[in-house]
Amino acid sequence: MEQTINVLDKVNSPEDVKKLGVSEMYKLADEIRHYIIKKVNTTGGHLGPNLGMVEATIALHYVFNSPADKIVFDVSHQCYPHKFLTGRKEGFTNPEQYQAYTGYTAPEESEHDWFKVGHTSTSVSLACGLAKARDLKGGNENVVAIIGDGSLSGGEAYEGLNNAAVLGSNIIIIVNDNEMSIAENHGGLYKNLKLLRDTNGEAECNFFKSLGFDYYYIEEGHNIEKLIDLFNKTKDLNHPVLIHMHTIKGKGLDAAELDKEHYHWILPGELDVNYSPSQGGNDYGSLTASYIEQKSLEDNSIIAISPATPGVSGFSPEFRKKVGIHYTDVGIAEEHAVAFASGIAKNGGKPILAMMSSFVQRTYDQLSQDLALNSNPATLLIFWGGISGADATHLTCFDIPLISNIPNMVYLAPTCREEYLRMLDWSVNQKDYPVAIRVPAGDANPAGQEDNTDYSIINKYKLEEAGSKAAIIGLGSFLNLGRQVKSALKEKLGIEATLINPRFITGLDREMLESLKNNHDIVITLEDGMLDGGFGEKIARYYGASDMKVLNYGAKKEFPDRVPLQTLYERYRLTPDLIVEDVKACL
Amino acid sequence: MEQTINVLDKVNSPEDVKKLGVSEMYKLADEIRHYIIKKVNTTGGHLGPNLGMVEATIALHYVFNSPADKIVFDVSHQCYPHKFLTGRKEGFTNPEQYQAYTGYTAPEESEHDWFKVGHTSTSVSLACGLAKARDLKGGNENVVAIIGDGSLSGGEAYEGLNNAAVLGSNIIIIVNDNEMSIAENHGGLYKNLKLLRDTNGEAECNFFKSLGFDYYYIEEGHNIEKLIDLFNKTKDLNHPVLIHMHTIKGKGLDAAELDKEHYHWILPGELDVNYSPSQGGNDYGSLTASYIEQKSLEDNSIIAISPATPGVSGFSPEFRKKVGIHYTDVGIAEEHAVAFASGIAKNGGKPILAMMSSFVQRTYDQLSQDLALNSNPATLLIFWGGISGADATHLTCFDIPLISNIPNMVYLAPTCREEYLRMLDWSVNQKDYPVAIRVPAGDANPAGQEDNTDYSIINKYKLEEAGSKAAIIGLGSFLNLGRQVKSALKEKLGIEATLINPRFITGLDREMLESLKNNHDIVITLEDGMLDGGFGEKIARYYGASDMKVLNYGAKKEFPDRVPLQTLYERYRLTPDLIVEDVKACL
Repeated sequence: MEQTINVLDKVNSPEDVKKLGVSEMYKLADEIRHYIIKKVNTTGGHLGPNLGMVEATIALHYVFNSPADKIVFDVSHQCYPHKFLTGRKEGFTNPEQYQAYTGYTAPEESEHDWFKVGHTSTSVSLACGLAKARDLKGGNENVVAIIGDGSLSGGEAYEGLNNAAVLGSNIIIIVNDNEMSIAENHGGLYKNLKLLRDTNGEAECNFFKSLGFDYYYIEEGHNIEKLIDLFNKTKDLNHPVLIHMHTIKGKGLDAAELDKEHYHWILPGELDVNYSPSQGGNDYGSLTASYIEQKSLEDNSIIAISPATPGVSGFSPEFRKKVGIHYTDVGIAEEHAVAFASGIAKNGGKPILAMMSSFVQRTYDQLSQDLALNSNPATLLIFWGGISGADATHLTCFDIPLISNIPNMVYLAPTCREEYLRMLDWSVNQKDYPVAIRVPAGDANPAGQEDNTDYSIINKYKLEEAGSKAAIIGLGSFLNLGRQVKSALKEKLGIEATLINPRFITGLDREMLESLKNNHDIVITLEDGMLDGGFGEKIARYYGASDMKVLNYGAKKEFPDRVPLQTLYERYRLTPDLIVEDVKACL
Repeated sequence: MEQTINVLDKVNSPEDVKKLGVSEMYKLADEIRHYIIKKVNTTGGHLGPNLGMVEATIALHYVFNSPADKIVFDVSHQCYPHKFLTGRKEGFTNPEQYQAYTGYTAPEESEHDWFKVGHTSTSVSLACGLAKARDLKGGNENVVAIIGDGSLSGGEAYEGLNNAAVLGSNIIIIVNDNEMSIAENHGGLYKNLKLLRDTNGEAECNFFKSLGFDYYYIEEGHNIEKLIDLFNKTKDLNHPVLIHMHTIKGKGLDAAELDKEHYHWILPGELDVNYSPSQGGNDYGSLTASYIEQKSLEDNSIIAISPATPGVSGFSPEFRKKVGIHYTDVGIAEEHAVAFASGIAKNGGKPILAMMSSFVQRTYDQLSQDLALNSNPATLLIFWGGISGADATHLTCFDIPLISNIPNMVYLAPTCREEYLRMLDWSVNQKDYPVAIRVPAGDANPAGQEDNTDYSIINKYKLEEAGSKAAIIGLGSFLNLGRQVKSALKEKLGIEATLINPRFITGLDREMLESLKNNHDIVITLEDGMLDGGFGEKIARYYGASDMKVLNYGAKKEFPDRVPLQTLYERYRLTPDLIVEDVKACL
C-alpha cells in the first residue's frame, strides 16, 4: 500500500480536507484505516470505534470549520481519524511517534480538542456548555457533539439530551449508531433505534423527537457525499438538531466487523493471531466467573450484573451463555446497576455487581443512598483498583476514598486467591452489609494457606508476622510490598517488623492498633491507591494523640497521565529502599 | 370537621381500605388531606407532593396487596397518604405523635416500606431490583414504582426506565405528572408530557413508548373509580407497564394549587400567614443572588445554574426574572449541571452552579472527569454543608471528603460575609481552577474586617491569633467553635492557643504547619463534616512522622437520622469542654 498513499500526505489540517474531491476523500479514508489498523495492532488500543468513524470524521472536517466550530467526542475513543486530520497523523503513520498522542481527545495536544475525556455519556452536556457560553457572548459558531449509541444508556447522556433539546440555539448532536456498546446494547431505547433504522428514520414513535429534537436519519454513515449533504443542511441552524447516523463498528476490517465486542479494543499483535474464545484462565475474572457459574447451579437467587463491561470481570460470552438468567448486562448505567443490585438484595436475591475501579465513581450517590443507607446485602466487585500507568481518564486509584468513607459499607481487600474466595462467599451469603471487594489484579495464585476467617467479625485485621519496633500495615495488593519492606527493615536497620494484613478497608481494628503501642514506635501504612481520604490517614488519625509515629504511603492527589508505574512508585516513595530511608529518618 | 370524621377511624391497614365503598374513599381522602395540612402546618414538611397523591394512594391500596405487592415511592416525600393507610395515621392525627415517623419511607417503620430514600430518581431502578429478585425466586407479586414527573429529568430515572422496559416481566411504573419539579420543570421531555396530556395520551410521539413500555394515560388522577379501573387493568400483567397519571400538586388547598413551588415544602405555621415574595434577606443565598445580579449587569458571560433547587441558593422567582438569560435551571440533573458548567467555563463563560451539599454527591464522576481533570474554571457553591439533625436521607456532612479528595479542585471554606464575597469574586474571575465554595449557613454577617486576600495563592492559611503550645485549626463555620475552644483552653489550662482559619479545604499550608512545630505540642482540627476522608486526617498524616500530637474533631462515619444537633455535638465531642478534656489527657 505504501506506494499508492498520497492523499494523506497533503492533509495536515482541516483546511486541507476542504480542498479534496470526493474520490480523494474516499482514498483518504482507506489510508487512515490502513494506518489505524497497523498502529493499533502494534500498540494496542481502541480499534472498532475508530474504524467506524473514518468517513464521518472526514465529512465533518470538510463541512465544519474546526476549531471555530467546536466538535466534542464522547468517550473520545473514536477520535483517531480526527487526530489524523488535525495535525497529528504522525502519531499513526510514524512508528516512532506511536506514543506521542493519547488515545483520547486532549486539549493540550490540539486546539481542535475541547475536553480530556474517557468516561462515557458526557459529550452532550459538555457541548451544551460550549453552546451556552457562545450564546452568552454572542457568537455564532456551530457546536457538534458526537455520541455513540452505547453511550446513550448512561444517565448523564440523557440529562444532556433533555437539556440540549431546549437550548434554543445551535447544537448538532450526532448519534453514531453502530448497534453496539462495548458488548451488545441493553435497554428499551435500543429497540427504538432499531425501529428507526428499519424505517429509515420515519417511525413516528421516536425517542429523540419525543425530547423535542429536529431529527435527521442517515442510513449510509460511510457515504461521504451523503454525510456532507446532511452536515451542510444542518449546519448553522438556530436550533438543536439530532442526526441519527448508522455506521458499522470495525468497518473495513472483516474480523472487527464480525466480532464487534472482541475487536472494540485489542492488545498488541492481536490481529496477527487467530482469536479463539477464552477457555478460562488463572486470573481473578475467570475465578469469579467460575464461582458464579457453580453457585448459580445451587442457588436460584444468584445474579451477576455488569454495566456494559463484562470483559473486566471475566463475564465472557461463554460464561454469559452458560449462566443464562443468572447474568444481566444493564448497559452503561452504573447508577441503575447499584440501585438495581440494592433492590435485588432487599427482595432476597444475591446480586454480584462487577465494575472497573475507574467507573465506580459514576455512581457515588447510589452507593450511599440506594445501597449503604439501606444496608442491603449486595456484593460489589471492584476490579483493577490500584495505582497505574494508565491515561488520566482511566485512573483506578480513587475507589478507596470513594467507597470506604460511606457509612455502613464494608470494603474488603483480599491478598490472595483463598482470601478472595472466602470473602466473596461470605459476602454473597450474609444479610447484614453492603459489601465491596477490591479484587486483586493479575493471576489468582493461591497463597497455599486455607482461609477460614469469619468475616462477619467486622474490622478484624490479620497479624501476618509479629515483631516489634515497626509495624507494617500492607493493604490488599500491597501486602507483598509490605513483605519486601519487612525484609529491607531487617537487612538495613536490624528491625524485626510486625506485618499486618488489614483485609478491611472500611474500619480500624482498635484492639490490634492499641496493642501495637506496647512495643512499637512506628506504624507504616501501604495502600495501592490515593492517600488523600484513604486508608492510611485513618491510622494516622487514630494515633494522633499518642507517641506512635505513622508513615503513610500511597498515591499523591493528582491525575498522572500515562506515567510509567515504576516512575509513580518512585515519586510516591513506594519502594522498600525509600521507605526504609524514611523510617530511619524519623526514629 | 372533627365531628364528621369516621372513615379514617376504621382504616388501620390496607386490608381496611379494600372494604370501603367509593364514597367512603372520597371521604377518607378529605380526612387524610385535612390532617396532612394540619400536621405539616404544625411541624413543617412536604405539603404539595402529598396533597397530590391522596386519591391515587387510596386506589393503590384498594387494588394491590401490600406488602406482598411492593410499592416503591420515588424521593418518598409524597408517601404521607401511604403512611396513613399502613398503620401510621397516628403520626398525623395525634399531635403528640407528630414526630413519630419520618417524612420519607422507612423500612424500620413498616413492612409496607421498602427503602429509605430521599434523593430523587431512584424508584424505578430499585423496583427493577425487587422485580428481578422475584423473577429469580419464581414469585408472582406486583412491583409498583411511583415517580414524579420532576424526577424524570434525573439520569438514574432514565437508566432505570431504559432497563425496566426490557425487564420482560411484571413491573408497573406510575408517573405522577403534576407539571412540576420543585420549581417548574425543565427539559425537552416536558413538552412531550404536555403533548401527551393534551392528546389524552394518544400522540404517537411518546417518550415512554419509544422506550418500549405498554403505556396508559389517565387524565383524572384524582378520580378514584377511574384509578381503580386502570390499576385493576394493569395489575398482574406479565410485562412492564407505564401509567402516566395527571394530578394536581397541592390538590385541595387553594394556596398550594396556586403557588406550587412555594408550597412544595413549608415551614411551621406558614399557612397561617399571607405569603409574600421574599424581599431579599441577610442570608448567604440572598447575598449570592445580589452578587450575581450585579455582576451580570457588567459581564455578559456570567450565568447562574441550579439543578432544580433554586430556593437553596437564593435564586428566588424575582431573582430569576431579573437576571433573565443569566440564570438557568437544568432540572433535577446534577450530572448535566456540572458538565454543562465545565463546558461553559471552557468556552469563556463564567458559570456559578449552586447546589445543596446533600446533592453534590449525585455527580462525583462529573466533578472529577468533566470538570477537575479538565481544570476548567467553573464556580460551584455548596450550600448547607455541615453536621445537621436532618433525616438520614438528607445529611450534609459528606461534601468535604467527596470534593476535597479530587485532584485539581480548590475547595474553599469562608467564615464570614467578607471572605465569602472575596472568594466568590476571585473564583468567578480566575481562569486556573475549578473552585467550590462551602457557603456558610445562617446570616451573612460581616466580620467587620475587609478581606483583601489573594486567593490565587493556593493553600495559604490565615493565622487569626498567634499563641503557643496548642494550635486550633477551625475550618469554615467551625472557626467560631475554634474561638470558644481557645477561650476554654486559656481558662482551664492556661494555654494561649494559636487560632488558624485555613480557608482552603483542599490543601495543606506546609509552611505554616511546619512553623507550628517550633512552639506547639498539639494541633486540634475542627471540621463541620465527617472526619473520615476529611480535612483533619490530612493534618494528622502531615504530622505523622513528627512529635506533634494531633486531635481531629468532626462527625463520625454514620447516617444519623433526625438526631438533634446538640446530641451529635456531644457524641462527637464537639464542645469546648470536651475538647479541653481531651487536650488535657494527652499533654
